[in-house]
Amino acid sequence: MILALKKNSTPAQEETLLAYLHQMGVTAAKETCRGCTVLLLEGAVESLDAQLLSSLPAVEAVLPLDEPLPLSSRAAHGADTVVKVGPALVGGGHFCLMAGPCAVESQAQLLTIARSVRSAGAMVLRGGAFKPRTSPYDFSGLQKEGLALLSLARRETNLPVVSEIMSPNDLPLFEKVDLLQVGARNMQNYALLRALGRVKKPVLLKRGSGATLRELLLSAEYILSGGNENVILCERGIRTFSDGTRSTLDLSAVPLLHEMTHLPVVVDPSHAVGRASLVPPMALAAAACGADGLLIEVHNDPLHALCDGAQALLPEDFAALARQIAALREVTHR
Amino acid sequence: MILALKKNSTPAQEETLLAYLHQMGVTAAKETCRGCTVLLLEGAVESLDAQLLSSLPAVEAVLPLDEPLPLSSRAAHGADTVVKVGPALVGGGHFCLMAGPCAVESQAQLLTIARSVRSAGAMVLRGGAFKPRTSPYDFSGLQKEGLALLSLARRETNLPVVSEIMSPNDLPLFEKVDLLQVGARNMQNYALLRALGRVKKPVLLKRGSGATLRELLLSAEYILSGGNENVILCERGIRTFSDGTRSTLDLSAVPLLHEMTHLPVVVDPSHAVGRASLVPPMALAAAACGADGLLIEVHNDPLHALCDGAQALLPEDFAALARQIAALREVTHR
Amino acid sequence: MILALKKNSTPAQEETLLAYLHQMGVTAAKETCRGCTVLLLEGAVESLDAQLLSSLPAVEAVLPLDEPLPLSSRAAHGADTVVKVGPALVGGGHFCLMAGPCAVESQAQLLTIARSVRSAGAMVLRGGAFKPRTSPYDFSGLQKEGLALLSLARRETNLPVVSEIMSPNDLPLFEKVDLLQVGARNMQNYALLRALGRVKKPVLLKRGSGATLRELLLSAEYILSGGNENVILCERGIRTFSDGTRSTLDLSAVPLLHEMTHLPVVVDPSHAVGRASLVPPMALAAAACGADGLLIEVHNDPLHALCDGAQALLPEDFAALARQIAALREVTHR
Amino acid sequence: MILALKKNSTPAQEETLLAYLHQMGVTAAKETCRGCTVLLLEGAVESLDAQLLSSLPAVEAVLPLDEPLPLSSRAAHGADTVVKVGPALVGGGHFCLMAGPCAVESQAQLLTIARSVRSAGAMVLRGGAFKPRTSPYDFSGLQKEGLALLSLARRETNLPVVSEIMSPNDLPLFEKVDLLQVGARNMQNYALLRALGRVKKPVLLKRGSGATLRELLLSAEYILSGGNENVILCERGIRTFSDGTRSTLDLSAVPLLHEMTHLPVVVDPSHAVGRASLVPPMALAAAACGADGLLIEVHNDPLHALCDGAQALLPEDFAALARQIAALREVTHR
Repeated sequence: MILALKKNSTPAQEETLLAYLHQMGVTAAKETCRGCTVLLLEGAVESLDAQLLSSLPAVEAVLPLDEPLPLSSRAAHGADTVVKVGPALVGGGHFCLMAGPCAVESQAQLLTIARSVRSAGAMVLRGGAFKPRTSPYDFSGLQKEGLALLSLARRETNLPVVSEIMSPNDLPLFEKVDLLQVGARNMQNYALLRALGRVKKPVLLKRGSGATLRELLLSAEYILSGGNENVILCERGIRTFSDGTRSTLDLSAVPLLHEMTHLPVVVDPSHAVGRASLVPPMALAAAACGADGLLIEVHNDPLHALCDGAQALLPEDFAALARQIAALREVTHR
Repeated sequence: MILALKKNSTPAQEETLLAYLHQMGVTAAKETCRGCTVLLLEGAVESLDAQLLSSLPAVEAVLPLDEPLPLSSRAAHGADTVVKVGPALVGGGHFCLMAGPCAVESQAQLLTIARSVRSAGAMVLRGGAFKPRTSPYDFSGLQKEGLALLSLARRETNLPVVSEIMSPNDLPLFEKVDLLQVGARNMQNYALLRALGRVKKPVLLKRGSGATLRELLLSAEYILSGGNENVILCERGIRTFSDGTRSTLDLSAVPLLHEMTHLPVVVDPSHAVGRASLVPPMALAAAACGADGLLIEVHNDPLHALCDGAQALLPEDFAALARQIAALREVTHR
Repeated sequence: MILALKKNSTPAQEETLLAYLHQMGVTAAKETCRGCTVLLLEGAVESLDAQLLSSLPAVEAVLPLDEPLPLSSRAAHGADTVVKVGPALVGGGHFCLMAGPCAVESQAQLLTIARSVRSAGAMVLRGGAFKPRTSPYDFSGLQKEGLALLSLARRETNLPVVSEIMSPNDLPLFEKVDLLQVGARNMQNYALLRALGRVKKPVLLKRGSGATLRELLLSAEYILSGGNENVILCERGIRTFSDGTRSTLDLSAVPLLHEMTHLPVVVDPSHAVGRASLVPPMALAAAACGADGLLIEVHNDPLHALCDGAQALLPEDFAALARQIAALREVTHR
Repeated sequence: MILALKKNSTPAQEETLLAYLHQMGVTAAKETCRGCTVLLLEGAVESLDAQLLSSLPAVEAVLPLDEPLPLSSRAAHGADTVVKVGPALVGGGHFCLMAGPCAVESQAQLLTIARSVRSAGAMVLRGGAFKPRTSPYDFSGLQKEGLALLSLARRETNLPVVSEIMSPNDLPLFEKVDLLQVGARNMQNYALLRALGRVKKPVLLKRGSGATLRELLLSAEYILSGGNENVILCERGIRTFSDGTRSTLDLSAVPLLHEMTHLPVVVDPSHAVGRASLVPPMALAAAACGADGLLIEVHNDPLHALCDGAQALLPEDFAALARQIAALREVTHR
């Protein structure tokens, strides 16, 4: 950590600061730069709080030098992590198309959609059994029964499945789920993250709609530091003033995360834009800027969907999109 | 619900829409306004999804008329709700000062601070035992031991206590906590909200940093609809582009929530601004615009605080602030 | 306009409202929907202020039905507008690559870059002569001399040029500029917009970093309503809490604007992301989601650039990107 | 400026960096801190671009040490600046209430309102003659005639007046305007700012709805560096995702600006919240957190106002508010 002191700080303020540092087990080498006193700190620096130091009267600026992301950063681990979801691979050049209904509604609905997305090229089936809903009065999923139907569809289609988990207590119910999804609202539900760190299954961690990329990676550290190395990150839109779409899909997060971390990055355009007509262009854009996969909502009868019908693609539109993505990736990736 | 159709919608598109509405159990009275066809819908309107209807080709705009907040809205319940926290009252003209350390660190620290805030006029003691931290490598609270120390301080000072609960599984540990705090990160942790709906204790529900006021009230509905009527709302800053403070304290939420809901509204300026020097002016501003209480962090030795020392007031500064708030409220309230 | 009245509004409040509407020259047909009184308004409705009506005690909600975008909306003009910039076409399937330095610095610099971007396939040369700078102490462009150099490069390369204009008073200086750029900071500089409405040259209108798409189109209306139909819209990033990039490139604006308006939409990824390494992936993403063109900063010596060197591509990197874009567009556009 | 180098940077990368610095006229003293190489830079450091350096492969982090705000910062000028607007003083403990209609509409309207706000205690009369409107089809003010009416009201009431100027070309028309307002949309209209720097009149500079506080101060530097020291800053709401009010009033900007700068800071709650019922609580909050003045919209007949009637206070409500503010200030300020 480096401290630059204020030019008009008093000797008494500086002495107080030095005494405090000494007491915290930190030694400070004093240098000068452009007329400023600069302190290069060594020793028990991890016990210092940069925010607190910044608020001291003698301190102009603080430059922390420690890597806050010991497990997820690119510096920690140069090669891309490839996550296995059943037979599907995500990351390190492997692109994975995940698709299915927002919510599991019935056996007929799920099997119809599952077969159609498989034949269109999807490698993982998505389907919500536990649905986090902003209003307690909205349909919140078939829950256990929904997971049973997913398990059936998995057997019938041989597709691995991804489904959202909202509480560590539900973990036993997710035995037949191949990829455990943490929703945007739960990105900082630390009890859940810690529980998933002790599991051997891959986790799809969605970025909270108000979270920075660093906060997303710190949430990933909760899982990684528990011993589970199989984390897939997911951009799904952030909260901004812009009101044309449900949220603002932050696609520059894709190449930026690829610089910051070795973990794979997928994109969920469906929830971000909230309208079916905008999903195909944004899915193509995500593929073009290097996403390692996509999570796309598909419904055979959007008008009667129990949840988020406005953003679901018809199976035939998904199939057309899947073909476009494949063609695009041939051009943009080697 | 009212639908306005597009001027250039085709008869076929309109017919499809009408057939769909009919099938959903909805009847549509057709009117005209400014050359637009307008449909006034009656019947099973609650089965319709306004988002989905907006995305249909024939539909120009949708005006939903239903009250989405049956329990929390001012329309539902005209009189201010007054929440009892031990002997303290919050709301309906009762102003409640809550103060204490960010985190419970030791018996000496907690008792010293508790006594000082009590003598300054605080009516509730705050103290974190379970600390949600962005990084898994930061101090996450004394947990059970912290709750035991809070219980001790409660006995010693006769102050009721407020502390954050992060998981429904921890509820048994919070027996001696008078007010259960839901942190901003957990505002949409529905498993937690549902569990708190079944409890008889008051709940302090913090606004998520990316949440609208309507979403805050819908989270309150999760608790209220479970049977627990004692919910206190808390504004604690929202995520914006503005980078001078940790987050942007949205004080207009205070009078606006008072129009929207009968529930009491308190403000936590400490977390919002993140710097001690800004806490007193923002606490005064919150009181001036009608907050029903304040949640303020106080530490006897901020330099050595284990958490968020930069934003903690010294006991003497808190005492001065408490006096100013009391004087201000005498002027602004009757 | 449609008004829904509050269920608990009093007869006196309704009468006051009706008297006011009558006095404003508006007639109100009274209907009922779901127990609400609904007023369908006809007559001098354009004299009403929806914001004001919403704030009246009797009014629950207002649904305005008027088209606020008489010239720019897709409803007003179904076919895509194609804008001619010298020999280059933008919109309606015509994709236009615009590239060049952030600022014109010298004859040698400009000609070197101009030749390299032309041979890479750029169809318009960009170059700033008047540079809006956040700080008054930063380099603000070569101004008149910069325009003279642009004119020289235009003659030498036969490329049309685009350059930013900041004041209507400077219009006479821009005689040899083919496309007049309005920067994001000036999107609501109405004196400038009105002046450009009286000009016969095409205008590149950048979205303000805090502007909604509707506000962008209303700014376009300032130009269109003055008689100048040649407006190209440009997405260049919006202000959000997300801090990894200079601003957040809102690519969903591209397909959404294509639904809302007939005007062409181009993207400036360089300013949005602020870092050269992120420009190629975001340029590809913009092309993939349907942008009608790109504005990309190129510099032969970014380390010594006088402005925004961090985001400039080297000529060889731009050439590689141009090839990738061409290949991608072959796949995604018929 | 201090550079911290990446731990895994190569000797070749470091050498390239050192050669570049040398060539730019900068000398670098090499130190070590926590295993990082640290460069303390001296010499022609102002020629370096921190953004550019950050993007270099060898560089981990950059700490600029220069004061970017040579004229507006508190470091530059310790004592509060007091600005004189006619006989009224703003700043340094002097609180100034400015009030009047959003737009000047007629002689009768303006004189009625001017007299009422004067008798309620307003010290400056506000009134818009040139109105920036998001839509070109909205009322844009009486312009010259509006300024003439303001001049009349000024003579009749002896109140100094504040009115918005949108173009440097209009300066001659503003001879009888005591305080020149730069609207939020024009905060970065540099031609206008430079022109106001050459004027001897005080300027009220509104914060852009997407601007950071540092950007606001850099815009003030445009005026100050031209020789005009009489700048009053104004917070009037920022663009956020929060949708309950027109914009989010960022009141923490008030005490934060008082730490950053010596310039006075006033608040416009009317435009921020957009609804009359929220104006009084937010005006009181602004006074409580230390604003040096308020800008409040008052109309004798809001229903028939030509602009922003929803946010205008009635004269009697303004008078009540003025009394509350005076009482509050007695308590909070000495």
